[in-house]
Amino acid sequence: MLYAKILRSPVAHARIKKIDVEKANDLPGVSCVITYKDAPRVLFNGSGTPIVKDLFKDEYILDDKVRFMGDKVAAVAAVDNDTAEEALKLIEIEYEELPAIFDPEKAMQPSASKIHRAEHNILAHVKNEWGDIDEGFKEADYVFKGRYETPRQAHCSLEPHACVAHYNRVSGELTAWTTTHAPFVAQRNLSEILDIPINKVRVITTAIGGAFGGKNEVILEPLCALLSKRSSAPVKLVLSRNEEFIGTRTRHPCTVTLKTGVKRDGTITARKIEIILNTGAYSSHGPYVAMAMSSREIGLYKSQNLRFDGYCVYTNTPVSGAFRGYGNPQQTFAVESQLDEIAERLGLDPLELRIKNGIRSGDVNPGTRLKIDSCGLQECMMQGAERVAWRRKRMMARTQSGTKRRGLGMACGLHCSGAYPYKPECSSAIVTVNPDGTARLFVGAVDLGQGSSTILAQIVAEELGIGLNQVSVTSGDTAVVPFDQGVYASRTTYVSGTATLLAAREVKMQILEKASKLLDIDEKYLQVKNEQVTRKGSEEGISISKVISESRYSQKDGTIIIGKASFQPLKNAPYFGAQFAEVEVDTETGQVTILKLVSAQDVGKAINPMLVEGQMEGMMHMSMGYALTEDLVIGENGRVLNPNFTDYKILHASDMPDMESIIVEPGESSGPFGAKGLAEGGLVPTAPAIVNAIFNAVGVRINEIPLTSEKMLKGLRKQKNEYKE
Amino acid sequence: MLYAKILRSPVAHARIKKIDVEKANDLPGVSCVITYKDAPRVLFNGSGTPIVKDLFKDEYILDDKVRFMGDKVAAVAAVDNDTAEEALKLIEIEYEELPAIFDPEKAMQPSASKIHRAEHNILAHVKNEWGDIDEGFKEADYVFKGRYETPRQAHCSLEPHACVAHYNRVSGELTAWTTTHAPFVAQRNLSEILDIPINKVRVITTAIGGAFGGKNEVILEPLCALLSKRSSAPVKLVLSRNEEFIGTRTRHPCTVTLKTGVKRDGTITARKIEIILNTGAYSSHGPYVAMAMSSREIGLYKSQNLRFDGYCVYTNTPVSGAFRGYGNPQQTFAVESQLDEIAERLGLDPLELRIKNGIRSGDVNPGTRLKIDSCGLQECMMQGAERVAWRRKRMMARTQSGTKRRGLGMACGLHCSGAYPYKPECSSAIVTVNPDGTARLFVGAVDLGQGSSTILAQIVAEELGIGLNQVSVTSGDTAVVPFDQGVYASRTTYVSGTATLLAAREVKMQILEKASKLLDIDEKYLQVKNEQVTRKGSEEGISISKVISESRYSQKDGTIIIGKASFQPLKNAPYFGAQFAEVEVDTETGQVTILKLVSAQDVGKAINPMLVEGQMEGMMHMSMGYALTEDLVIGENGRVLNPNFTDYKILHASDMPDMESIIVEPGESSGPFGAKGLAEGGLVPTAPAIVNAIFNAVGVRINEIPLTSEKMLKGLRKQKNEYKE
Repeated sequence: MLYAKILRSPVAHARIKKIDVEKANDLPGVSCVITYKDAPRVLFNGSGTPIVKDLFKDEYILDDKVRFMGDKVAAVAAVDNDTAEEALKLIEIEYEELPAIFDPEKAMQPSASKIHRAEHNILAHVKNEWGDIDEGFKEADYVFKGRYETPRQAHCSLEPHACVAHYNRVSGELTAWTTTHAPFVAQRNLSEILDIPINKVRVITTAIGGAFGGKNEVILEPLCALLSKRSSAPVKLVLSRNEEFIGTRTRHPCTVTLKTGVKRDGTITARKIEIILNTGAYSSHGPYVAMAMSSREIGLYKSQNLRFDGYCVYTNTPVSGAFRGYGNPQQTFAVESQLDEIAERLGLDPLELRIKNGIRSGDVNPGTRLKIDSCGLQECMMQGAERVAWRRKRMMARTQSGTKRRGLGMACGLHCSGAYPYKPECSSAIVTVNPDGTARLFVGAVDLGQGSSTILAQIVAEELGIGLNQVSVTSGDTAVVPFDQGVYASRTTYVSGTATLLAAREVKMQILEKASKLLDIDEKYLQVKNEQVTRKGSEEGISISKVISESRYSQKDGTIIIGKASFQPLKNAPYFGAQFAEVEVDTETGQVTILKLVSAQDVGKAINPMLVEGQMEGMMHMSMGYALTEDLVIGENGRVLNPNFTDYKILHASDMPDMESIIVEPGESSGPFGAKGLAEGGLVPTAPAIVNAIFNAVGVRINEIPLTSEKMLKGLRKQKNEYKE
Repeated sequence: MLYAKILRSPVAHARIKKIDVEKANDLPGVSCVITYKDAPRVLFNGSGTPIVKDLFKDEYILDDKVRFMGDKVAAVAAVDNDTAEEALKLIEIEYEELPAIFDPEKAMQPSASKIHRAEHNILAHVKNEWGDIDEGFKEADYVFKGRYETPRQAHCSLEPHACVAHYNRVSGELTAWTTTHAPFVAQRNLSEILDIPINKVRVITTAIGGAFGGKNEVILEPLCALLSKRSSAPVKLVLSRNEEFIGTRTRHPCTVTLKTGVKRDGTITARKIEIILNTGAYSSHGPYVAMAMSSREIGLYKSQNLRFDGYCVYTNTPVSGAFRGYGNPQQTFAVESQLDEIAERLGLDPLELRIKNGIRSGDVNPGTRLKIDSCGLQECMMQGAERVAWRRKRMMARTQSGTKRRGLGMACGLHCSGAYPYKPECSSAIVTVNPDGTARLFVGAVDLGQGSSTILAQIVAEELGIGLNQVSVTSGDTAVVPFDQGVYASRTTYVSGTATLLAAREVKMQILEKASKLLDIDEKYLQVKNEQVTRKGSEEGISISKVISESRYSQKDGTIIIGKASFQPLKNAPYFGAQFAEVEVDTETGQVTILKLVSAQDVGKAINPMLVEGQMEGMMHMSMGYALTEDLVIGENGRVLNPNFTDYKILHASDMPDMESIIVEPGESSGPFGAKGLAEGGLVPTAPAIVNAIFNAVGVRINEIPLTSEKMLKGLRKQKNEYKE
């Protein structure tokens, strides 16, 4: 095994004039040093998206240009990490610096220096429109306008990105053990980039220590594989925490300009949304995040007239990518902040305003043009409001005095189960059974810590009438499991779960058919339950294990019972949530303390309530950090100023307030056992709920998160000055 | 990782009166010592047979009785092999010796001391009968009787039996990496013996360095797993060469008493066969070998009246088990030797006699009552005879003088493709495809060096119209592949191959269906060929990779193409062969030199001719050793006298004569692409062909193999003395 290290660019934008690796190569213990000269000239986009526009393919394993401070320049494989580090220092490079650009709005100007081969730095301009916004705004009694800024959030997985790649020169096979949660995406990318047939590329997902979307694209794998190919040895590459911050992916920093027309009674007549997404130095998921923002979440409230313009823009900063929520937290922060502003101005209860405009079951989501089956939005709002004593506490807030003021706020969100109809969404599963009645599920979906393997095993167990402990799950190895697009977009339970259910159902049908022959009872009268096949309404029957055993070991009439299924969703089942926050603001210091968070979420059906609660609490944690503390700051020259856990503040367990999770289960006809997605929605409305609560507490509204004490204090002082004036 | 060693019995039959492991346990570096006191009292039969009569379950992991010299008494797991060996010496045991019995005929006597709980040492008496032998013998003009003895042959795989077992105390899962070629049999045995659900037992077949039937039953795995369970660590157990000889399995030593009635013209009127199989100290495959002998191979020649009695008998000797040929070489040695005796007496050409009586296509094999589809027996005889210049050389033999005499002999055999209808035979396979048109086959059948993965990949490639290099094969891991009974009984190409073909066909059907939509051409006009789907008789079409890709990555109409199949054979497709041997006998020393071997074999269809030839040459090698040199000799007290490669003589490359392989391909309707089994049949008739050639050379017939120079010389001297008399 060799160990690899990456040399990263010390400048934000430059052409490599000269690169000399001779001294590094000569260092004892160094196996190979690679630069752009050694890398295939194959452009790729490592994102989870299987069909990528050519324009969005903008990365090489290594290029002769660097586009942000931290970009890959060269890599070394050596006998140990220390030697590899030492070799990096021996690589001599001359850069020809180019003008660097860090602000997306500046990057959008025609005169800005070009970062890629695209004609300008606007990588994509995504539009969506319905109704007539000019008419809509004419109908409005009031028009509200706001500009909202959201930060560059880091995934902060406990485990860094890591990969071991082994190219076998004899068989021509490449095996990569990696932390990806989209192993088939990695497989396809490796195949294309390194020109190895897909059947000779095996990607094995190791147990994943957190991902949050940050590990669904190939970042290390092609480089690591190339090092292995060059050195004819397995190569291990593990990123440092510093590299995790600067060299992987982040949430897109985003500016949302939102204009909303409303009637006096609070009816929304028109909306105009413009977003600018800073994708950093490479495309990654950028255009797809803009597409997601353009469609699904903007349908949360009924609005007959809407126009959306989304710009995905290159800058010479670290790369943004997929991150739990996928553009939704940014946009929802704007929409839900402004909704409270509207309610305040119209003298309406923000809860009532949301109930009035909120989408309902049977409506068509205008963003996606798909009809909504189950919708627990109203229920989430009502239950959450009751839990926080909404009316009483909102009123009490108005009567406070003293320097510490309390307030209560809320916000709503929707997210979709899967990326249908915007991306390929097909999943598959295979179920096999053993003669003792136990079963094994083979599924492409990876458990990245969210517990999906447990959920999928439950689905098999429920369908087959056996115990959870009787089901084993194999996943995450492209040489073993059937294809799955990957784990993203809250799709696993909904899409992979349905494929799993269908595969298990095929097994059940075969078991019933065999049992029917053994018992001489028509199949339609039979059921599986408690490890038995029994006549419905009676105890008469036969054990499932006996059916499987008789089937497998028949000497003349044998069948190996296998179930397989491919599932193409024809919906994306939006799931809804309402978030409530109770805060206390210290008006002297600007410090905001969250006293309580209540999250109510419609999950269709909670297949595993404990895992649902775990997800909901995790989302409250992550989004509270988004609201208050987390921001990866880019300095003047493009340097990340806080790439470590001392300066980049994620919340600790001790920082967390009292949290309550309310699970709403309206049942979704298109989901397995009524289930929908879960794992992103609760993240979406937390920041605006907190900002709205702060407004309720102190009457100050800040449209830029994270809402640090500094910003808060500034806002409070401005308010004071305004009063003085 | 810990390393294990086994303490073996120094006596052939005894009860353990006292066993003290304290000193062994106290040795630094020893993790655990186990004896019968630590082993579950679960009887098992580790053979490949899935449904075993309770009586045939006669082994414990460790027992308080030892039944042969070399039987397992205790085992140690320690930090290294040396420490484990040292610990073995510290185990103190007192044995209460019991009368030991080595000769099966003595063991059969009612007064013989009992080796197991069975009422007597005859473990099984297998019968088969058709017609009326009394009538048959009445019709006969001549009756021939003979007694034939065959030796205890050792498998002599290059790689010894080895296992690494790891019981995970937290998950309750057991993983065993082992050299088995029936991983699902091992899985089921481990589950039953150690009381772990099947889904928690994973058996992974490592690359196998030879097996020949010797690795299809669990021998080490339960012991190794128990050591791992006790020590909570992975445990590695590798047998020494000495242990390979005495502690694994051998071919059954066998006595065949054969009585045949014939008419003057050579028509067989009746046969009476009695066999005594020495199964050694444990049942293993014994009863099933007797069953096999009772049925399929005795149908090679038409005989209206037959009676078979097979006795499987316990003795206090090493255990016999499955060995390539599975009883067939023993019986065929008797049948084919006697047939030449008959021809000699009747003045017939042995070739003509065989052609006259040999079974043909369309006949029913009376042994199995199954109709024969393809039969290349006659063709094998004709082609082989031509190749060796049969008539000319046979005549020339009669005209020799001098001390070195040459002779030509032949013999025939049949073997069956699979164990249908005597054992469960169902196999299954899954085929997946990738968007670059490559494919992966998941199959339970294990490649044990015979090249089955290549054959199965060829089947997939042929059916899908893609290249062999585009198909990868995953096999031999119970947590990965669908169920297969195992690799034995020449069944892999025929049974697992058909399952593979059917799974590939399901993939093809889906590809054609998708292509039909894409091309707007009815499926029935489409074919797959050269990586394309084309209209039959035209070049118009679309690449398979595009069909798969469009299917997988459709945003609204996606399908993951997967093929699966379960296949239950309804035949066992006998495959036939004729073996020719040209020998030279030194009448002064008794030395027999094989000058040439010609093997003609009907394989139905040679899917991979090079692998077929490899198998045929391997069989000639193994059976020539069986005929001339190989015999694991048991001494007076039950000790194996030659458990090493110095004293047990297997033939080297330099010992081998000129060999020719003739492949006969009549095409079998029930096999994939016309293929049948292959890998045992060529082994069967070699020994009688050699013995018959020796008779042709010197007029001496020896009914006991191996035909050592010593036996030959004795036979020559006896002949001389008879002449003198």
